Amino acid sequence: MRRVSIISAGMTKFGEHWEKSFRELIVEAGVRALENANLEGKDIQALFGGCMASGTFIEQEHIGALMADQLGLNPIPSIRVEAACASGGVALRMGYLAVASGAYDIVAVGGVEKMTDIGAEDAAIALGGAGDQEWELFNGATFPALYALMANRHMKEFGTTEEQLAAVAVKNHKHGFLNPYAQFRNEISVEAVMNSGYVATPLKLLDCSPITDGAAAVILCASEKARGFTDLPIEIIASSQASDALALASREKLTEMKATKIAAAEAFKQARIDAKKVNVAEVHDCFTIAEILAIEDLGFFEKGYGGKAVEEGETALNSRVSVNTSGGLKACGHPVGATGVKQACEIFWQLRNEAKERQVKNAEIGLTQNVGGSGATTVVHVFKRGD
Amino acid sequence: MRRVSIISAGMTKFGEHWEKSFRELIVEAGVRALENANLEGKDIQALFGGCMASGTFIEQEHIGALMADQLGLNPIPSIRVEAACASGGVALRMGYLAVASGAYDIVAVGGVEKMTDIGAEDAAIALGGAGDQEWELFNGATFPALYALMANRHMKEFGTTEEQLAAVAVKNHKHGFLNPYAQFRNEISVEAVMNSGYVATPLKLLDCSPITDGAAAVILCASEKARGFTDLPIEIIASSQASDALALASREKLTEMKATKIAAAEAFKQARIDAKKVNVAEVHDCFTIAEILAIEDLGFFEKGYGGKAVEEGETALNSRVSVNTSGGLKACGHPVGATGVKQACEIFWQLRNEAKERQVKNAEIGLTQNVGGSGATTVVHVFKRGD
Repeated sequence: MRRVSIISAGMTKFGEHWEKSFRELIVEAGVRALENANLEGKDIQALFGGCMASGTFIEQEHIGALMADQLGLNPIPSIRVEAACASGGVALRMGYLAVASGAYDIVAVGGVEKMTDIGAEDAAIALGGAGDQEWELFNGATFPALYALMANRHMKEFGTTEEQLAAVAVKNHKHGFLNPYAQFRNEISVEAVMNSGYVATPLKLLDCSPITDGAAAVILCASEKARGFTDLPIEIIASSQASDALALASREKLTEMKATKIAAAEAFKQARIDAKKVNVAEVHDCFTIAEILAIEDLGFFEKGYGGKAVEEGETALNSRVSVNTSGGLKACGHPVGATGVKQACEIFWQLRNEAKERQVKNAEIGLTQNVGGSGATTVVHVFKRGD
Repeated sequence: MRRVSIISAGMTKFGEHWEKSFRELIVEAGVRALENANLEGKDIQALFGGCMASGTFIEQEHIGALMADQLGLNPIPSIRVEAACASGGVALRMGYLAVASGAYDIVAVGGVEKMTDIGAEDAAIALGGAGDQEWELFNGATFPALYALMANRHMKEFGTTEEQLAAVAVKNHKHGFLNPYAQFRNEISVEAVMNSGYVATPLKLLDCSPITDGAAAVILCASEKARGFTDLPIEIIASSQASDALALASREKLTEMKATKIAAAEAFKQARIDAKKVNVAEVHDCFTIAEILAIEDLGFFEKGYGGKAVEEGETALNSRVSVNTSGGLKACGHPVGATGVKQACEIFWQLRNEAKERQVKNAEIGLTQNVGGSGATTVVHVFKRGD
């Protein structure tokens, strides 16, 4: 298989885009990604797009064809992939495999979701489709409730506190404050999180990522040709994916995401590094507990120590490992199909030293971890600066 | 890129499966495909699943994870792809690329749809998502109406008659009568089609494919290892995909599917054969006019001659080219996400001489053409018997 690099990235601001359509979001992110590398549409040979639930959110399927059409890329092959909230990460992986295989030299990878066009109840059903709708949601377990079960168990087994959960949100809002693409650009305090209403005990409103509209795109190129487009390509040195039971009740443990552990082990093997080498990581903090599980299961910290690590600042900007410099899903926002691609955009900018006020110093190795549902899919990518 | 072969196939009967769930359909098709090659779940390294609109049909997304879970395949990567009614064909192509790349030796490709759990109006919205919902369906053009526009134009330009359209349905019911997996196992006459009610002039009820539940699966293997699993692997000698405008109004012509022409040209180039070499083809007859467009755009017959060719029996079983021996979408049924994979199952059985009463004699080369929406995506695969 050939080596693959990212040569460009582009995204919309994440937020509530009442004035923009699904299609406009796609075009805005896609055109920015093309322009940032001085590419034209005709340079792109195939398109992979992540989108989770457009059928429910906007009553439109056939998203691959729609993306190619709106971006003026016909007649290239265009493929939508869906893996719930990991749709973007899986799209990246499919694009990676397509270039690695030799089938294409340059492909575009996008992710998009327009979530604000329907009411809260319909949105809950749409997002419930990420879990086991039949066994969980239809029986009354909302999506936050699934993560609340994990949080409760983690608190019981390891003494993790609600304040430690809150510390995740506080950190990510601090980062989001520095990111012009973020939905929430306000800092919050532990007290503010603690005083926000319970959504599903122990998770409170400010432990939860928001409903978001947005799109993100990256351009992948065979590494051997990447220098023709940019002086600083970012190589994808690992791409892995693993699956676990769809329903929480069928998992071995509530205090870890097995799919993350398996995907991480595979990714570090491919990249020939260990977790300690990672300078900057975008992980899937759909709820604050998810970030704690992620930094443990990725091997950044020992199992059970994640909450304390966040509380003590070991994941803040320019600490031991800078986690969610974009603001994460919590503060940057979480347009479900776009998140996995946004994570790659953020790492691309970090490793190129283009992240401005939120720049991690001397970042050489970046990682993204994108989760579908309550952990049934995890996709991990590892990125490296330079050649 | 490595050569890739199909080593096994399995499917459910297509039909109205009131007694079976989405999950049961997946398991039935998947287990049959595994058993037919004496494989076990642990032999499968990745799973690619086509599904169009599960969010609308059954309020469930994250279909990749659900498939892996139900089939006991965790923790392998499992990816759902969506390209409207071409979802199955695109899943096959993704599985093909994954093996061709060297990333995996053996992968499973599945397709599934459970369409009968919702009412007709909701189903119309779900299927409308295959076209341009915003510009076509919301403005009153039902999905049959889009194909009716194509039929009218074809009739005007080339003198194609309603009786010739009917001849497609008559032929495909004749084939479906011979196929134990088919939804409709009854022969019909041209008179019956002509006397069925108009759905969208000139298309009548019996010009339209039905609402169907069903699933289909194939197992792909690197050709160099395929003989370890079966004495008669069927090689995929071409895999191509093209895109066109999502909305009919944006197409260059109504009398051809440009994406089919482009995908076919690319496929025949990869396969190093021309259309004349194809013995048996499964093409996308969601409406009778679609089969006429397909056999013209694939190059089996000259543009404008398709209707006459069908009427004169040139596409019947064991004629010049045997088209839709399964019964096609019309008689075998059309569970939208499964159809593209079912087409591959049928060709696999035909080229292995296992199609019994509907067997094409001495079939060496097979082809599948799977269309998304009204032609915005076309996927073409070419298959060859033996090594």
